[in-house]
Amino acid sequence: MGEGPSPDPVRLTMEIAMTDTDHTPKFVPGTRLSGIIRLLVRWKGSIFKLIGLDVVIWLLFFYTFSCIYRFLLDDDQRTLFEKAVLYCRDFNSNIPLTFVLGFYVTTVINRWWGLWNTLPWPDDVIHYLTTYLNGQDERSKLMRRTILRYVNLGTICCMRYFSSRVKKRFPSMRSLVEAGLMEESERRMMEVMGGDSSDSLRSMFWIPHTWATRIAHQAREENRIQSDLGLRGIVDAVTAVRRTCAMCQHVEFIEVPVVYSQVVTIATYSFYCALVLGSQSIDGDDSDKDDINAYAPITSVFLLVLYVGWLKVAESLIDPYGEDDADFELNWLFDRHIKVTHVLGEGMNTSFKEYTWKD
Amino acid sequence: MGEGPSPDPVRLTMEIAMTDTDHTPKFVPGTRLSGIIRLLVRWKGSIFKLIGLDVVIWLLFFYTFSCIYRFLLDDDQRTLFEKAVLYCRDFNSNIPLTFVLGFYVTTVINRWWGLWNTLPWPDDVIHYLTTYLNGQDERSKLMRRTILRYVNLGTICCMRYFSSRVKKRFPSMRSLVEAGLMEESERRMMEVMGGDSSDSLRSMFWIPHTWATRIAHQAREENRIQSDLGLRGIVDAVTAVRRTCAMCQHVEFIEVPVVYSQVVTIATYSFYCALVLGSQSIDGDDSDKDDINAYAPITSVFLLVLYVGWLKVAESLIDPYGEDDADFELNWLFDRHIKVTHVLGEGMNTSFKEYTWKD
Amino acid sequence: MGEGPSPDPVRLTMEIAMTDTDHTPKFVPGTRLSGIIRLLVRWKGSIFKLIGLDVVIWLLFFYTFSCIYRFLLDDDQRTLFEKAVLYCRDFNSNIPLTFVLGFYVTTVINRWWGLWNTLPWPDDVIHYLTTYLNGQDERSKLMRRTILRYVNLGTICCMRYFSSRVKKRFPSMRSLVEAGLMEESERRMMEVMGGDSSDSLRSMFWIPHTWATRIAHQAREENRIQSDLGLRGIVDAVTAVRRTCAMCQHVEFIEVPVVYSQVVTIATYSFYCALVLGSQSIDGDDSDKDDINAYAPITSVFLLVLYVGWLKVAESLIDPYGEDDADFELNWLFDRHIKVTHVLGEGMNTSFKEYTWKD
Amino acid sequence: MGEGPSPDPVRLTMEIAMTDTDHTPKFVPGTRLSGIIRLLVRWKGSIFKLIGLDVVIWLLFFYTFSCIYRFLLDDDQRTLFEKAVLYCRDFNSNIPLTFVLGFYVTTVINRWWGLWNTLPWPDDVIHYLTTYLNGQDERSKLMRRTILRYVNLGTICCMRYFSSRVKKRFPSMRSLVEAGLMEESERRMMEVMGGDSSDSLRSMFWIPHTWATRIAHQAREENRIQSDLGLRGIVDAVTAVRRTCAMCQHVEFIEVPVVYSQVVTIATYSFYCALVLGSQSIDGDDSDKDDINAYAPITSVFLLVLYVGWLKVAESLIDPYGEDDADFELNWLFDRHIKVTHVLGEGMNTSFKEYTWKD
Amino acid sequence: MGEGPSPDPVRLTMEIAMTDTDHTPKFVPGTRLSGIIRLLVRWKGSIFKLIGLDVVIWLLFFYTFSCIYRFLLDDDQRTLFEKAVLYCRDFNSNIPLTFVLGFYVTTVINRWWGLWNTLPWPDDVIHYLTTYLNGQDERSKLMRRTILRYVNLGTICCMRYFSSRVKKRFPSMRSLVEAGLMEESERRMMEVMGGDSSDSLRSMFWIPHTWATRIAHQAREENRIQSDLGLRGIVDAVTAVRRTCAMCQHVEFIEVPVVYSQVVTIATYSFYCALVLGSQSIDGDDSDKDDINAYAPITSVFLLVLYVGWLKVAESLIDPYGEDDADFELNWLFDRHIKVTHVLGEGMNTSFKEYTWKD
Repeated sequence: MGEGPSPDPVRLTMEIAMTDTDHTPKFVPGTRLSGIIRLLVRWKGSIFKLIGLDVVIWLLFFYTFSCIYRFLLDDDQRTLFEKAVLYCRDFNSNIPLTFVLGFYVTTVINRWWGLWNTLPWPDDVIHYLTTYLNGQDERSKLMRRTILRYVNLGTICCMRYFSSRVKKRFPSMRSLVEAGLMEESERRMMEVMGGDSSDSLRSMFWIPHTWATRIAHQAREENRIQSDLGLRGIVDAVTAVRRTCAMCQHVEFIEVPVVYSQVVTIATYSFYCALVLGSQSIDGDDSDKDDINAYAPITSVFLLVLYVGWLKVAESLIDPYGEDDADFELNWLFDRHIKVTHVLGEGMNTSFKEYTWKD
Repeated sequence: MGEGPSPDPVRLTMEIAMTDTDHTPKFVPGTRLSGIIRLLVRWKGSIFKLIGLDVVIWLLFFYTFSCIYRFLLDDDQRTLFEKAVLYCRDFNSNIPLTFVLGFYVTTVINRWWGLWNTLPWPDDVIHYLTTYLNGQDERSKLMRRTILRYVNLGTICCMRYFSSRVKKRFPSMRSLVEAGLMEESERRMMEVMGGDSSDSLRSMFWIPHTWATRIAHQAREENRIQSDLGLRGIVDAVTAVRRTCAMCQHVEFIEVPVVYSQVVTIATYSFYCALVLGSQSIDGDDSDKDDINAYAPITSVFLLVLYVGWLKVAESLIDPYGEDDADFELNWLFDRHIKVTHVLGEGMNTSFKEYTWKD
Repeated sequence: MGEGPSPDPVRLTMEIAMTDTDHTPKFVPGTRLSGIIRLLVRWKGSIFKLIGLDVVIWLLFFYTFSCIYRFLLDDDQRTLFEKAVLYCRDFNSNIPLTFVLGFYVTTVINRWWGLWNTLPWPDDVIHYLTTYLNGQDERSKLMRRTILRYVNLGTICCMRYFSSRVKKRFPSMRSLVEAGLMEESERRMMEVMGGDSSDSLRSMFWIPHTWATRIAHQAREENRIQSDLGLRGIVDAVTAVRRTCAMCQHVEFIEVPVVYSQVVTIATYSFYCALVLGSQSIDGDDSDKDDINAYAPITSVFLLVLYVGWLKVAESLIDPYGEDDADFELNWLFDRHIKVTHVLGEGMNTSFKEYTWKD
Repeated sequence: MGEGPSPDPVRLTMEIAMTDTDHTPKFVPGTRLSGIIRLLVRWKGSIFKLIGLDVVIWLLFFYTFSCIYRFLLDDDQRTLFEKAVLYCRDFNSNIPLTFVLGFYVTTVINRWWGLWNTLPWPDDVIHYLTTYLNGQDERSKLMRRTILRYVNLGTICCMRYFSSRVKKRFPSMRSLVEAGLMEESERRMMEVMGGDSSDSLRSMFWIPHTWATRIAHQAREENRIQSDLGLRGIVDAVTAVRRTCAMCQHVEFIEVPVVYSQVVTIATYSFYCALVLGSQSIDGDDSDKDDINAYAPITSVFLLVLYVGWLKVAESLIDPYGEDDADFELNWLFDRHIKVTHVLGEGMNTSFKEYTWKD
Repeated sequence: MGEGPSPDPVRLTMEIAMTDTDHTPKFVPGTRLSGIIRLLVRWKGSIFKLIGLDVVIWLLFFYTFSCIYRFLLDDDQRTLFEKAVLYCRDFNSNIPLTFVLGFYVTTVINRWWGLWNTLPWPDDVIHYLTTYLNGQDERSKLMRRTILRYVNLGTICCMRYFSSRVKKRFPSMRSLVEAGLMEESERRMMEVMGGDSSDSLRSMFWIPHTWATRIAHQAREENRIQSDLGLRGIVDAVTAVRRTCAMCQHVEFIEVPVVYSQVVTIATYSFYCALVLGSQSIDGDDSDKDDINAYAPITSVFLLVLYVGWLKVAESLIDPYGEDDADFELNWLFDRHIKVTHVLGEGMNTSFKEYTWKD
């Protein structure tokens, strides 16, 4: 193994500085008025950010059609226009949008939470390592550090294939070497074993995880891990990381059925379009409410916000590995994993000696 | 064991080339406009593919009836026709289709995700094998390879009985021998034990899994696996594969109740049929919206897309082992399992020696 | 133990022949037209079988009332009749049947799937037995066979108390002795321990499971099981079978609340009754749709099929241990368990020797 | 330990006779007519028992108001009355009761089933004890018996604090001593450790569980349990019992939110009250249906049964440890646990020797 | 370790006295009338507390507008006012509030219960410690006490970062030292390892958990824990505590999507505002029901209570670590943990000797 590329804490800190800027704890509201106000003025992932553009475009169309109807059309054309308006109103009143959206959004949210629970965390590995492979000599440290590096490496190898954020940060295997997460020889090794196709490597992301357990086994043979149960604990923890990685990867197989997403999207945007005409005030309408709606279609905008906003809930959650505001911040997670494993693989055990119970 | 039929990588690669063509990562949309457009133009498993024909047939009937009404019928017949149209409209307004479909589709989707989570994966077996049975001599390699082959064999034996895709690929036990997954003697052995009836073999698909654990036990006796916990880890992993196989097989017992599917299907297609007549414009209708609907029944087509599309969500998910676009691609999975187990059972351990930590 | 009653394969095969006739793999539809048609023509557990009689009775009443109204009543009576009809229509339009049924059926289906997952399977026991207690001498075989027999015996003892199908097949403990699943001495033993009341025995169904683990412990002491982990694996598997048996037995405690079932049933059948009158065509109705409904109440029959069919979904699933088509086929399962355990406890290990890897 | 108070079987049987009278297996209906009828005539936990009184009171008020309106009021008062009636009708038509109830009841039922699954069962402890601590000498028997007694004792100590049924049966710690479940010295011991406040003891219910594992550890040291895995199995089983006890206890923290229950209750009973007036037939009503409703408000009573019955589903399930018919019969469970543990801790092992396999 | 700061029971008791005052067992209603009444008069977390202010404010606005309309406006202004009223009525009738709220509240409740189940409890650690590390000498006691202190310390370090209640009680690391939960040297140690940024420490809350397992390992080496399985049991229990802590911490990542909360909040409060005008009685209304509504808008207030109350269910559950009445009482939990661990780490084992079985 030579020395193994120790992930340089300085470089890492810089990288963290570059990536975790967009991670500030999110505010969660309570029942107080201040909470409600703070909820409404949030920008990130908010309704204003997500559907602001939709509303503006809708208003543009609405006023354009409104002006055309009022100032440009002759009587025959006005009659035709009015027919279209009535038709659109009838159309919108026939779409059972509420229920379709309600069932669909519930389905998507349940899936999103399920996916979160399958994200891999190396913390259990760390825990068993510091307990059972706790020597303070150089070789023990190297083993600890290498096992943790392999665990993180395998996780990143897996994520690269389906998270666009991770892909951007580590566009190639070589970039992993540059980041100090992998040795050049290990990169060659993975290519030899995984074959040349990227699809192959995709299925074999867990080769580093296998390396990690091999080193643990070696440590057991050298009696640096003193019991079989200790080794098994570490192996089980690494296996669990691999398993959750695999489950993340399989998400593409169990996406929300395309036809479901299409039906809901088409229904919502048809409603959106039909509402442009359907909201126009035309001659023959009950004039009382018309005065307001003609110049400021509040009810329509409100319905728009409600339905399109509801759809956006689903859209922003449907691909949790993407780059939306509600998506998982995988790069932040990796930085955390690397930093944590570095501290515990290296720093902790040496300095722990001074303070702890042993003396 | 003699030598054991090593699954020939070349032959396997060819087979993979033949089968995994239809596996390209699916696109999942985000909140951006481009995402929405790309969602709508997807073909595979899409609404256009699934209900295109339904819509075309519906339109054919619609225009046929429309022409008959306008050009062929005399006054008495027209009156009768109009009665039928009114009747159909009344009929459709009475069916609470939205809720029946909403509850039904939610039930089917939950079941589908549950089933996905019971698919068997050999990865844990590989992981424990490379950790605990890690000798580099020929006999150790043979043991590893054979255990993994048996695990895959048992899985395929199980799947053959309920997945039409797998059945097509491996129509008989003999075809398994030809694919290099099984020795002729093993095939005879299974027949002796399982009895002559296919129903018997169906219940006994896990005989190869039992063989796998027997070999692992033997390896422990020869001290190739150095701890009881190592053996138990491997046995547990094989048992877990067997258990998930069995759960897949039992799916037929817990299908969505027939009567539920029938009620929903009958309701939806009755709506479909009644809509052909109910959408006709007849004398006495409010003429404003009629002009459009008479020639282009947009609202009706839209309702059709919505309801039939929703039903198709359920239909395409209700038998996940079938050949629909949304069904599990079991053959692709098998190829992946075979390739992965081959690489790790064989290749990895030899070449790993050069690079890794041991030196 | 003497010899232990080996479940005679010949007798068993005959019994299987008698009981598993009604187990043919169920067909599950896809998105194709053929699939839909095949779904609709299924008989077993189908809507036609379940609500056919309800519809026929309804039609009888409908036409009887229709004739009475048309031919027998004088004017005063007709007025009264018409009032009743209007009243029934008003009644039916006030019942929110759709939602009550939707929520209720979802609840029942979730429970039904939950119950399926608690059915006991002896397969894990077999797996650990063939791995760890794998001697080929007579005593080892006897031990294997006896453990498996006890596991099945305990399961059947449990099921007898709540499944009417199993109760019919094994009406008394003595019938278990006759079927070769139990020795006479064991029967007496259970009576001594369980006490004379059947309620006592009910709680003690798992006495044979305890015997099974005792034998396993004995095998460990004689070193036929070579590691503590092997023994623990077998004990855990038997315990898991016992636990799932107990969960099945406790189902009666957690039935769907009576009041819920009653509310839904009363609501549905009130609707059913009120519809008989409410569907009558009376003077003063809009004559257009009346002509059809008077002679063929299609819409009403359809609503009937929908609502009563939906209720039948719940009724057929609410007691999964009963004798409905959708209920669990416990006898088939027992035959499978017995056959499988026989083959593996006895046959496999002897003949395996010839083929397998050991030589 | 001295001798330990062996739960006297005679006394126990008497107590069981006193408490389990209300446990007869509940009937669960199938799809047959007889099943439906038997469902409807059930009394315990039935709609008739739960809402009979509500309906009678409602009818009293209804007829009282009806008589007042018809016979006592002058014209001005009648006009006022009619206004109130119209107001109530308008009120009731504005409450979206169906959905609020549907969502609420589903939430409550899910919680109720979740709670059932956290009830503690000592069966696993028994199973591991009879397997691993299987000596037939007096000291082994005493150990078995004491461990099981402690397990039951800890469970009852826990349940006493939140189940009114258990509290009634064991009003004080001293009553536990009298029932033979606890020695006087143990009671003093618990008081010393738990402190004087009952809140303290409440958090420390599992002290007896700790004692149980200590005895198991002692048995391991005396080699009465022959393997570490055996000890661990027993300890894990006891820990699992303690954990489920704790989860039961924490139920009060995770009750259904008060505000939710209040909203639903207020909504339902407002509907109930408004219906008294809203169902009155007044001058100006459509006289056709009025004739029936004036004297027999069938539709209203029916709606009452539906909505109030639905609410009762939730009310009867919301506190599963209470004394409603649908609540868990904890005393019956304890009797069963005590009886079962007595038989197995004592009787089984001695008599088992005569019959079983060992000879 | 020196001596380790033993959490002083006296000081602790005082602290408990200060914090657990607001923990009285909550009342849960049954089906009896008394239960319903007691449910309705509950104050804590009740509808009256949560939405009382909302209703009062609404009534203020309502009567203000009502007076303005009746006494201040001239005819033109009245016409304008009436238009606004009609507009608001139309607006409110168009919002599908019921379903949006129903789906949203169900989602939030499910998440809340999920979060409860991830709260960390040290009880399993205690259980394994008293079983396996059961020496009565000073060093064993110190080890037990220190392990438990570290477990609690790690949990509190975790909770401080997201629970405002815990943050208030322990505003800095130094306050932990003052409370006797931490030694000064340990505080320095954590700062050295975690780095200076609070974000770093946030990710490293489980450093004390690592210390705990290290001490357990040491105890195994000194043979105070006599089996590998005993050590593994303790390590697994500590790891489980750490894992649940981490899951609590990650809650901020998986909050309910902002856009969902915003859509629902905006919808509900728009309804609230529009109802102020929409409930006004204006000329031209049906005068019958108007008389009541003009002076006492009962129906409107009722709808308000229903919808805003439903929303409050979600608001009070959405951040379970906050300070609402329905939020988790983490400080009470910590006090319980500390007290319990103190009693068992210290008191129990000494006094247990007098009574228990060993003598």
